[in-house]
Amino acid sequence: MLPRDYTGQNCSVARTLEVVGERWTLLVLRDAMMGVTRFEVFLRRIGLAPNILTKRLRALTEAGILDRRIYQERPERHEYVLTEDGKQLFPVVMGLMRWGDAHLSPKGAPAVVRHAECDGEIDARAVCTRCGEAVDVDHVTWHYGPGSTKPVGPRPTPPV
Amino acid sequence: MLPRDYTGQNCSVARTLEVVGERWTLLVLRDAMMGVTRFEVFLRRIGLAPNILTKRLRALTEAGILDRRIYQERPERHEYVLTEDGKQLFPVVMGLMRWGDAHLSPKGAPAVVRHAECDGEIDARAVCTRCGEAVDVDHVTWHYGPGSTKPVGPRPTPPV
Repeated sequence: MLPRDYTGQNCSVARTLEVVGERWTLLVLRDAMMGVTRFEVFLRRIGLAPNILTKRLRALTEAGILDRRIYQERPERHEYVLTEDGKQLFPVVMGLMRWGDAHLSPKGAPAVVRHAECDGEIDARAVCTRCGEAVDVDHVTWHYGPGSTKPVGPRPTPPV
Repeated sequence: MLPRDYTGQNCSVARTLEVVGERWTLLVLRDAMMGVTRFEVFLRRIGLAPNILTKRLRALTEAGILDRRIYQERPERHEYVLTEDGKQLFPVVMGLMRWGDAHLSPKGAPAVVRHAECDGEIDARAVCTRCGEAVDVDHVTWHYGPGSTKPVGPRPTPPV
């Protein structure tokens, strides 16, 4: 948990930022939503210092956003999986992503998120632009977009 | 503009966080969405150091999210008003707010945002829960909620 230094704020935006507002944390969440669960994959994809990643994963686990699970007994190894509470941050990630697509990505969207059921694109409100459904992160597919360094098309899930 | 130290990220989430991810910036945006325009009101409401607020307002202005306007000639005084680009961050603010309402506000939501046209509550996707419309920040009203220190009801716009 971050220091509660938004002193005097009786505000849910401030409270959420105390949990997810530290630098790198929302990129960890973005990757978790793409299906990343392993420490070394977060580390390679995000490119931050291991001790910082450890802190971020611990804070997200303590906040109930990620669930830390054993996936191998000997030697003991853990993975980090989004909880139901964590999945509810999907609209925040989509809002940030689609704003960056619109305003800061002159080559086009690096990533496109689609509704698994109808293949419509997901908008900044995490709503499907084809069928109009409010979509959860469990019901999307991830694709390389026109601004990606990879050819446009489906991307491996989880990312490698 | 913040240092672009999300090195190697070809990602719209990272790019948007370079603009709005610094500490306090999203609280400045929250207040701008509530109608705050004056330096001294941001300062009093957010409670951060004046030099930091100056930096945040300058970064948001340079990023095209706030527009700096003269509102008084002698002495010259400026105010900060959301641009159309800035207004498009409303779903991010609502996503953070509603997540905090749901998970970090045991007394209930400190603030309730309603659709001006039908009075329905705005959800974490910035969609009206009554009429289903995807709502822009220009079409909402702000209210003290059950978790507020003030009696439940409409709040002054802009906040004082």
